[in-house]
Amino acid sequence: MPWSKRLNIKLIVRIIGLLLVIEGVFMLSALPFSIYYGDQSFKWELFNGVHDFWPLVVSALLTTAIGGALYFVAGRHVKKVLGKREGYIIVSLAWVIISLFGAIPFVLSGAVSSYTDAFFETISGFTTTGASILNDIEGVPKGILFWRSMTHWIGGMGIIVLSLAILPFLGIGGMQLFMAEVPGPTPDKLHPRITATAKRLWGIYVLLTILQTGLLMLGGMNLFDGLCHAFGTMATGGFSTKNASIAGFSPYIQYVITIFMILAGTNFTLHYLALHGKLKDIWKNEEFRNYIFIILISTVIITLTLTFIGHTNLEKGFRDAIFTVVSIITTTGFVTADYLFWPGALWFIIFLLMFVGGSAGSTGGGIKVVRQLLLFKNSLLELKRLMHPHAVLPVRLNKKPVSQDIIFNILAFFLIYIIIFAFGTLVMSLMGLDFETAIGATAATIGNIGPGIGNVGPVDNYAQIPLFGKWFLSFLMLLGRLELFTVLILFSPAFWKR
Amino acid sequence: MPWSKRLNIKLIVRIIGLLLVIEGVFMLSALPFSIYYGDQSFKWELFNGVHDFWPLVVSALLTTAIGGALYFVAGRHVKKVLGKREGYIIVSLAWVIISLFGAIPFVLSGAVSSYTDAFFETISGFTTTGASILNDIEGVPKGILFWRSMTHWIGGMGIIVLSLAILPFLGIGGMQLFMAEVPGPTPDKLHPRITATAKRLWGIYVLLTILQTGLLMLGGMNLFDGLCHAFGTMATGGFSTKNASIAGFSPYIQYVITIFMILAGTNFTLHYLALHGKLKDIWKNEEFRNYIFIILISTVIITLTLTFIGHTNLEKGFRDAIFTVVSIITTTGFVTADYLFWPGALWFIIFLLMFVGGSAGSTGGGIKVVRQLLLFKNSLLELKRLMHPHAVLPVRLNKKPVSQDIIFNILAFFLIYIIIFAFGTLVMSLMGLDFETAIGATAATIGNIGPGIGNVGPVDNYAQIPLFGKWFLSFLMLLGRLELFTVLILFSPAFWKR
Repeated sequence: MPWSKRLNIKLIVRIIGLLLVIEGVFMLSALPFSIYYGDQSFKWELFNGVHDFWPLVVSALLTTAIGGALYFVAGRHVKKVLGKREGYIIVSLAWVIISLFGAIPFVLSGAVSSYTDAFFETISGFTTTGASILNDIEGVPKGILFWRSMTHWIGGMGIIVLSLAILPFLGIGGMQLFMAEVPGPTPDKLHPRITATAKRLWGIYVLLTILQTGLLMLGGMNLFDGLCHAFGTMATGGFSTKNASIAGFSPYIQYVITIFMILAGTNFTLHYLALHGKLKDIWKNEEFRNYIFIILISTVIITLTLTFIGHTNLEKGFRDAIFTVVSIITTTGFVTADYLFWPGALWFIIFLLMFVGGSAGSTGGGIKVVRQLLLFKNSLLELKRLMHPHAVLPVRLNKKPVSQDIIFNILAFFLIYIIIFAFGTLVMSLMGLDFETAIGATAATIGNIGPGIGNVGPVDNYAQIPLFGKWFLSFLMLLGRLELFTVLILFSPAFWKR
Repeated sequence: MPWSKRLNIKLIVRIIGLLLVIEGVFMLSALPFSIYYGDQSFKWELFNGVHDFWPLVVSALLTTAIGGALYFVAGRHVKKVLGKREGYIIVSLAWVIISLFGAIPFVLSGAVSSYTDAFFETISGFTTTGASILNDIEGVPKGILFWRSMTHWIGGMGIIVLSLAILPFLGIGGMQLFMAEVPGPTPDKLHPRITATAKRLWGIYVLLTILQTGLLMLGGMNLFDGLCHAFGTMATGGFSTKNASIAGFSPYIQYVITIFMILAGTNFTLHYLALHGKLKDIWKNEEFRNYIFIILISTVIITLTLTFIGHTNLEKGFRDAIFTVVSIITTTGFVTADYLFWPGALWFIIFLLMFVGGSAGSTGGGIKVVRQLLLFKNSLLELKRLMHPHAVLPVRLNKKPVSQDIIFNILAFFLIYIIIFAFGTLVMSLMGLDFETAIGATAATIGNIGPGIGNVGPVDNYAQIPLFGKWFLSFLMLLGRLELFTVLILFSPAFWKR
């Protein structure tokens, strides 16, 4: 793609406008649940203070109207040249703006009183972090809760990828947008055409969501809970409709969610291969093998410790262990057990898993298994390079050599991740948070996980974080979701030079 | 240097033997203090239970005898071919073996009852960590305390560098040994011949130590305390002869130690330039400028917070701030204030400084300022590389481009450092330590600092760490002192292949 000398601002405005229209339409999908669950006596009245029907309608209309206005103001005869710069700007800006508008229903309905809290909840939804400021989730109107889970689902596969799938004209330069939203180290294209790739990704995503909803309903959930939890699972989000998250549901439900969290944290290219019967190729994927290996080894250690030292029974120990391990490594953040009450070493394992993350090309966040794998291999090779300084020793993945540039980029990614983590912890502790809470809140938001450690642990929430802290953590969520560079590059002076 | 096909085991044994002889001679240097401070009634008796005279003599003779035996057993007509492999083995092994023998006086004198504790104290001394297991330092015989501080001084500039300076015949292949013990990213050679470089380094080191001892004695310290604290300062070690570390001494003494800690954490090449009147060249050194900048900015933040929020007076606030900042960044570990009682954000700044470390070519440990500087510059460049993927953008240091290989090596160093830090914290928490203590003990030992956070904070010690934990932390100290690769390479199967 070209590095345009002059920013195509009109095209940026036009595309952002379009994304807002799409968002407005999605808001309307909450209306059936708002009507069904609404207070019966008020159901057909035009307006009342607690009901969420009109707030949702007004928000949707406002979002669509402003989006439409932006779209038309930018004019029809926009040059469709989309350079790298425009790609980075559109994607970063889009995620902020859809969060700004997505927060409106929370405030209008009265479910959340401050706009800061509403924005935090919304960007936490879109970035599939799942960190919440709601103290009583079950007291929030169902339409709002549905929209809350919907933000997960839209964000999980990406709103840009979604628009590429449904708006074919974006195909021109769409690759640039795709790369800025899905910047993983190994971009697998399912199809040479980017719109076709986006369609296939969303197809698999919809299919798995429907399948999971069905299986959850077989276990006794109603349609509302089934959809909301499927959204939270497939997006690796973590918002539940219950105050106790998944702890109150049956073991069957917990196992179903565990399995679909594993699927959501898997590279979607592998699902595509599976759908085409190429099961053998899946096991050949090194990242997948390591992803499964890390889950298994952590689960075994935690299960044995909980069973033999914690004296729970084996099934419960295993279920809590695998659910928590999978929930954290996939960066979902659903909770069935308070891991902070486990022996110290166990929750440190959980803390370390926060820095692993899902697979590249999955809906999971974090550093990603493939990056950790390549970093680890490169470290071992560095020892060999010391012994044989003149030998060329490339890192290999799936038996193919990986270019030095990619390794360099991943090393820089890791370093910046750690710097931001350290700096974020410093900022949070400057706001008076204790050490564990500061570390936990930073790791859990930049990794798009949700629950952290300290006072933002699995049974706590982010309501008590100071105002500025909520905006700062919102920024960290965005940084993490767009894998650092897409956002950071906007802060580089060189980016804005002609 | 060649990568020898067959290990020259005889030469390895011979050199290690020689180092033990040197160690034995150094042990004897504690005898005058043992005699002077010994219980008067027993001073000239041949043996008594608490006295440290005979224990020191016996330890010294044993060490010298075994060293001499190894030297002669290996035979005179050893081939003097010293390859890379021999270099790594000699250096790693030497540091372990001199610690094993250096621990003997502690046990024989009864000052430390367990050999594990004595080994921990000794390797903590040689690696200039300064982490102690002594609950009552002032109750330990003075001869033993002198030997304890002497281990710092020997380790600070390096026992290999010392032997290169005093044993000219080691010059053959000595470069290999020097590189394994001083593996910093920018090895400045003060002279083309390695023995001449070693002599100059030790010369400056001795000079600064004498100067500091003099200044401390002007402030009222006796010769014993003056020497011990100068050893602890110039080696960036941190062992004091007082239970309260430096807190009980006068402001004058505290400022003297602060200044000499800054000097000890500076690249010794700069001292050499200063001695030759080239003061202008010093400020041209980017690492030095950043080292001073980090110290100043941290000191200002902490001083202002302590003065305006903590309500101490400005001089005391400034003194505690600069002393603590310098003590941690240079990885010395002397203490004048319990930073764990400072507001949370302040001790997090201290915690972050643990990951900076001194300058390359100084006696300070840790990651080192120049590495952090190059990593930071490379991260900023990575953003530019994303914008202009085909441009060649090298990192520059002191206005000269740095080769990709060096950057690659530093990135791998940082990654391995973080992996070991995370793994170490896991191991320590598996032993039942709480989160902060596990994190603190790991960061403080791998960084060769001494005091950490949690229960190994500035006013605590390492006595309560479980047995296995002490051996593990000893290993971390060695890893940190030899900058990871020199030790880790021995664990690579490829290293041992013919």
